[in-house]
Amino acid sequence: MNTRTNVYGQNMEKETIEKAKKRKIDEDGNGDKAREESVTFAGFKVKAVINENARQKYLFLHCRKNDEDAVVLLEKTPFDSSMTDQILSDNTKIRETLQNDIYHTYTAFLPENLNGVKATVICPASEKHIKKYTEQESFVIQETAELYTKVTLPYLEKHSFSTQWVYNILEKKKEADRIVFENSDPDTGFILLPDMKWDGKDLNSLYLQAIVHKHGLKSVRDLNKSHLPLLNNILEEGADVIDQEYGIPKSKLRIYIHYQPSYYHLHVHFNHINLESPGFDADRAHLLVDVIENIEMNDSYYQDKTLVYRVREQDELYKLYQDEGYFVDFPINTSLSSNSSFTAAS
Amino acid sequence: MNTRTNVYGQNMEKETIEKAKKRKIDEDGNGDKAREESVTFAGFKVKAVINENARQKYLFLHCRKNDEDAVVLLEKTPFDSSMTDQILSDNTKIRETLQNDIYHTYTAFLPENLNGVKATVICPASEKHIKKYTEQESFVIQETAELYTKVTLPYLEKHSFSTQWVYNILEKKKEADRIVFENSDPDTGFILLPDMKWDGKDLNSLYLQAIVHKHGLKSVRDLNKSHLPLLNNILEEGADVIDQEYGIPKSKLRIYIHYQPSYYHLHVHFNHINLESPGFDADRAHLLVDVIENIEMNDSYYQDKTLVYRVREQDELYKLYQDEGYFVDFPINTSLSSNSSFTAAS
Repeated sequence: MNTRTNVYGQNMEKETIEKAKKRKIDEDGNGDKAREESVTFAGFKVKAVINENARQKYLFLHCRKNDEDAVVLLEKTPFDSSMTDQILSDNTKIRETLQNDIYHTYTAFLPENLNGVKATVICPASEKHIKKYTEQESFVIQETAELYTKVTLPYLEKHSFSTQWVYNILEKKKEADRIVFENSDPDTGFILLPDMKWDGKDLNSLYLQAIVHKHGLKSVRDLNKSHLPLLNNILEEGADVIDQEYGIPKSKLRIYIHYQPSYYHLHVHFNHINLESPGFDADRAHLLVDVIENIEMNDSYYQDKTLVYRVREQDELYKLYQDEGYFVDFPINTSLSSNSSFTAAS
Repeated sequence: MNTRTNVYGQNMEKETIEKAKKRKIDEDGNGDKAREESVTFAGFKVKAVINENARQKYLFLHCRKNDEDAVVLLEKTPFDSSMTDQILSDNTKIRETLQNDIYHTYTAFLPENLNGVKATVICPASEKHIKKYTEQESFVIQETAELYTKVTLPYLEKHSFSTQWVYNILEKKKEADRIVFENSDPDTGFILLPDMKWDGKDLNSLYLQAIVHKHGLKSVRDLNKSHLPLLNNILEEGADVIDQEYGIPKSKLRIYIHYQPSYYHLHVHFNHINLESPGFDADRAHLLVDVIENIEMNDSYYQDKTLVYRVREQDELYKLYQDEGYFVDFPINTSLSSNSSFTAAS
C-alpha cells in the first residue's frame, strides 16, 4: 500500500513522488526558466502505436531517440468546468461542420491555455516499460470447481503471496491513522479504510475497502455458511458507517468482492455509484448481497460454482491455463473472412 | 430500431441523419464559404454545468443566447493514430512540468488541425433537451421477489410495452438481410443479428444480439428449467456461429443478459471482450453461463433471488419504488460532515 496508481495504472512509490514534487518546487523556486520554455519532440521517431483508447482519449507510442527506446504517453485533458466563461469566450474559434434545424455541430479551437495535452515521456525505456504500456490481449476463463482445484489453487499455494502488508494494517503497525471503522472480533470483524485510489474528498468517487481480521480466507472460493456473520457485519456496519461518516446512503453504494482479487486476503470494495470503475465489470465484481444470498441458498455455492473472469496474456494464471490446454478448445479461427456473408439456418 | 445512438446517447432518426448529410454535401458543394469561416460563441452565456466526465473528457452546458435556451455539448476528440508523425512534429510545442530520473511530464500544445474539440449546439433548446443532457442521479434497487411482484411486475403489465418491432424482426418483415444466424424452433430457437450500436466491421467492438423466438419471456425473472434448452442453444450455437463467421473464439466473448433489460422480450448480448461498455456493469449484466448454472442448481433461482440494479431519477421504476417508500429506509444523512474524524470502534 506504499504505492499509488496514476491514470496509466503505473505504480509510483511514495518516495519517488515526494522527490519529484521537491524537484518541481526547486525548479519553480530557482527560476530556471530554460526548463519552462517551450521545446519540441525533435528527435523522437515513432516505431509503433502500442495502445490507444478513443473513449478515454489516450495514445501510447513506442519511439526511438538517439538510439534509445522511449515510451510517449499522450492523454487529452478533462475540461475545467470552472473555466466555462473562457471556454466560450471570443478566444475560442468555431467552424461549423453540420447544421440541421436546431442542431449545429462545430469543430472548436480553444485558446492554448485551455487545450494542452498531457504528455509523459519515459526515456531511456527498458523492454519492461514498453511491455507495461503495450495493450495486452485479454481472455475469458470459465473456472469450474475442477479447474480451480487443478490449476488455480496449486498456483495460489505455490506462490503463497505475501500479505504481510495487510497484517501490518490489521495489527495497526501501518496506516492506523487512516482507519475509518473497526469491528475487532477476530472471526467476524474487519477494518474499514479508504482505498489508495481515492483522494478522500470527492464523494462521487468514494472508495473504501473492508479488510477482514480472519486470516486464511483467500477469496470467495473459500466462503461458506460459517462466514455469513462476517459478511453480514461488513454489509451492515460498513454501509451504516459510510452513511454516518460521509452521508452516502446504501442506495448510492456498490458493495462487492473481486474474483480474481488483486491480493489473496478477503476484502470487500465500497464505491459510490457514480464512480466509473473498470473493476465493476460483471466478469470480476461479485455483489456482496448476491454472495450472501447464494451461500444462504447453498452452503457450497462458491465451491461448486463455475466462476468467470478475465485474464491478460502476461498474467501467470493465463499461462497456466494455456499450459493446461484450456484455450485449445477455443482456437482462433482465421480461415474465414470477417464480412457478414454467412447466413446459416438450422 | 430505426434510430441510431450517437456518443451522447442521443437518438437521431435515420431521416434526420440523411437530411443532415445532404445539407452538408450541398454546403460543401455550393462553396458557401461564409459558413466554413471561423466564428465564435459570442452571445452565449453559461447558466449551468449540467454534466461532465473527466474520464471521457466531455462537458455539457446549459446556456442562454438572445433570450433563448441553448445546450452546448463539448467533447475532446480521440487522437488520430495515423497522424503520429505530425503529433510529434516541430509544430507541437511541449512545456516540462516535472522531471524525475527517466520520467518526464509535459504539457503539449498540438497544432490546431490536430487539436479541435467537438462542439454540438442545440438552440433554441426545450426543457426536454436540457433535461436529456443533464446528469441524472442514480440509485441502487435491491429487488426482492416480493418487491418484484408488488412493484415491478404490475408496472410491466400495466404498460405492456410494445415489442411489435421485435416481432417484425422475428417474422422477417424487417431487417431480414441483417440476420447472421437463425434457429427457427419456436420454443428453443432464436435469431442472431448485429446490434445497431456496432458498425459491423471493427471486430474489437463486435456486438450482436440473440432474440428468442418464444414470446412472453419478459426477462431473467421468467426463466426456469424449462428454458434450459433455449439458453444452451443460444450459448453454444451463438458462440459457434460468431467463431465461424467472425473468427472470434468463445474465450474472447462476453455473453450476458441485462436486468432490467431495455425491452421486455428475452434477448442475449454478445460482445467482444475488448469493447468497453457500461452495459457490462455487475449491477446490470448477468452472464449467460451463470444464469444457466444457477437454474440447473435451483429451478426457481430467478424467481426467488434478490436482483440488484441501478435506476435513474427519471426512470418510471425509480418513481414507483419511491412511492412505495423504498428509499425512505435509506435517507441521505446530511447532519455529519464529510471529513474523516469519525473513528467508531465496536
